[in-house]
Amino acid sequence: MINIAVLGYGTIGSGVVEVLKTNGDSIRKRAGDTINIKYVLDIRDFPGDPIMDILVHDVNIILNDPEVKIVVEVMGGIEPAYTYVKEALLKGKSVITSNKELVAKHGAELLDIAKERALNFLFEASVGGGIPIIRPLNQSLTADEIVEITGILNGTTNYILTKMSEEGIGFAKALKNAQDLGYAERDPSADVEGYDSCRKIAILSSLAYGMQVDFEDIYTEGIADITDIDISYAKALNARIKLFATSVKENDDNVFAMVAPIMIRANHPLYSVNDVFNGIYVRGNVIGDVMFYGSGAGKLPTASAVVADVVDAAKHLSKNIWTIWSSKKLELVSIDKVKNRFFVRVAKDKNSNEDIKAIFGEIEEVPEVVKNELAFITPLITEGEMQEKKERINGLLGSIRIRF
Amino acid sequence: MINIAVLGYGTIGSGVVEVLKTNGDSIRKRAGDTINIKYVLDIRDFPGDPIMDILVHDVNIILNDPEVKIVVEVMGGIEPAYTYVKEALLKGKSVITSNKELVAKHGAELLDIAKERALNFLFEASVGGGIPIIRPLNQSLTADEIVEITGILNGTTNYILTKMSEEGIGFAKALKNAQDLGYAERDPSADVEGYDSCRKIAILSSLAYGMQVDFEDIYTEGIADITDIDISYAKALNARIKLFATSVKENDDNVFAMVAPIMIRANHPLYSVNDVFNGIYVRGNVIGDVMFYGSGAGKLPTASAVVADVVDAAKHLSKNIWTIWSSKKLELVSIDKVKNRFFVRVAKDKNSNEDIKAIFGEIEEVPEVVKNELAFITPLITEGEMQEKKERINGLLGSIRIRF
Repeated sequence: MINIAVLGYGTIGSGVVEVLKTNGDSIRKRAGDTINIKYVLDIRDFPGDPIMDILVHDVNIILNDPEVKIVVEVMGGIEPAYTYVKEALLKGKSVITSNKELVAKHGAELLDIAKERALNFLFEASVGGGIPIIRPLNQSLTADEIVEITGILNGTTNYILTKMSEEGIGFAKALKNAQDLGYAERDPSADVEGYDSCRKIAILSSLAYGMQVDFEDIYTEGIADITDIDISYAKALNARIKLFATSVKENDDNVFAMVAPIMIRANHPLYSVNDVFNGIYVRGNVIGDVMFYGSGAGKLPTASAVVADVVDAAKHLSKNIWTIWSSKKLELVSIDKVKNRFFVRVAKDKNSNEDIKAIFGEIEEVPEVVKNELAFITPLITEGEMQEKKERINGLLGSIRIRF
Repeated sequence: MINIAVLGYGTIGSGVVEVLKTNGDSIRKRAGDTINIKYVLDIRDFPGDPIMDILVHDVNIILNDPEVKIVVEVMGGIEPAYTYVKEALLKGKSVITSNKELVAKHGAELLDIAKERALNFLFEASVGGGIPIIRPLNQSLTADEIVEITGILNGTTNYILTKMSEEGIGFAKALKNAQDLGYAERDPSADVEGYDSCRKIAILSSLAYGMQVDFEDIYTEGIADITDIDISYAKALNARIKLFATSVKENDDNVFAMVAPIMIRANHPLYSVNDVFNGIYVRGNVIGDVMFYGSGAGKLPTASAVVADVVDAAKHLSKNIWTIWSSKKLELVSIDKVKNRFFVRVAKDKNSNEDIKAIFGEIEEVPEVVKNELAFITPLITEGEMQEKKERINGLLGSIRIRF
């Protein structure tokens, strides 16, 4: 029997308890031993819930119990999660977490501590919910140099964009809809401003390139400025707007990363990733393109990924599973130097076609969707150039990067 | 330094040599040691090729060399591959293979031999080319009971069906096109008759359910009977025809598997898997739906999967990576009992709507695409019932299963 403790009895924590109960038999076969939840930590009480028998309010009971071999941290946030996780590792326990903030910020350090002690620090559930992506990156794509990772990594924003597109409603209404269904939080900024996607692409990039990618360095734009008019243009262009989290390695000295809305067409592997689903596209220098798709959030899918990590930790109780993520910082290329093409909308009464061509050179005209607007697609230019050109436009109404 | 030997210097074998050379540095980091190809076995000579220095014609040189720790079998076919692989394991070497025939037929036995000797028998490349699917099934989806696996597992047939759909050409012309491009062999029967997909779904099902699924037991239908008229109907129905390899576990006593063309609509995760790409969709009882997508064949993608297995074997030189695939046979449910809906075409001059309704009861009418044809969709009925009803139709022109 292998004793574990679960820190946090919220949505994911209760999912972990449920999955271990529902699939106990097959999990025992896979892990080679019974997984027993010895403690659940939470500041709250849960009268009538069976876990009351094993509920504790003091983390030290768990940290000081040598019988606990694996600690599952599903509280979220940096503190006290970081302190608890670090302490657990220092006391010889492997740690599983679903906490993207913690992993993005302290992943390299916690992996080092685990490695030194022949323990494991696993975090499959921190990106893409139930989708297997961390383990495939670490253990399956090992023959490749990863040259690009692009994901739709946030289900809330993908749901909002899908509804805007399907129902022709505006951002505010789609957000309200998502909140009513429990897909978006009351304070939705972490999702809609792109911060959640930013932390996740920081984690994936660090693993793909083996060095620390600081999320603070990643240019991040959310979807709050996307309007129903943008969506109409996307449709006219046979495209969809998706919030992409992307990082590209052109060579060792040239890695960039960004989170931003992007227009894509049906030939892009992520085009069909709709609603709350996530999709992660990886390009390797020999494998070519692979894509992973599934539920990016939700109680049971996320708990499934957490429990799969518990099984892996149980099979490797005193053997570290090799993960390459050095604490050495990877300096990202300045966003100003990254090249993109842009879809741009301007006020027709303030710009003639000639004005626009004087600024951008050759443009691709976009058929009229809204009266009194002029829309076009720029050539491939750097973000820095685009910034400068934007300032020369009178009556700029909006711009969205495109990948087609 | 870890010495390996490559059995077979064909497309994949030369890909393995190329990948180890191209990405040697990063592979060394991932494996924790240099991977050195000590021998390549082939009956042919390759004058001028650098591997001539390490080419051998006698497998015993490899089998009897204790320095060789890992043997890569990329010859294909059952014999002599089976004999060589078994002998290599018995002599204490881990084995990596891309050989789906070998794995489907002897996987359980070879895994047992490897496990008894603390070695590894790995076969990521045997299904889905470069797509990570074997390792995710074994190591990532361990918290789930798998209830369905459905894949587009054969790139050749997917290419043919895609071209038929995009270009409105018939099967024969699309096949010729695929042969000209090297996507189909001169004798294309293994692909177009579904045998290749059948072996692959047998492997995936054995791993998903942990017991031996014999490929001979899987009902298998190819795509040779799909016509351009079927494709036109599919378009009229907003659907596409794909060759599905599928297995579903309704409960412990109720698993079925089949390979057959299926009509699906855009809401199916595999709808966008076109050309030579493969897609594998897995449903777990807690994770929900996940999908894996990528190049299902090709020299470098397949070699990437082989080399990733070499890296894994190198990291686990004397530790077996647990794989659950018992040699105990899983008895599949008779195909006659499996329920499906069918799209059916009949000759109009031999059937009235009333005749059809007398046979099938409530049907869903399909708009006319071809004169003198009557097309409709049946209710959900068993394959046995369908067989019997087909015999009662005069002038049956064709039928295709649908999933929408």
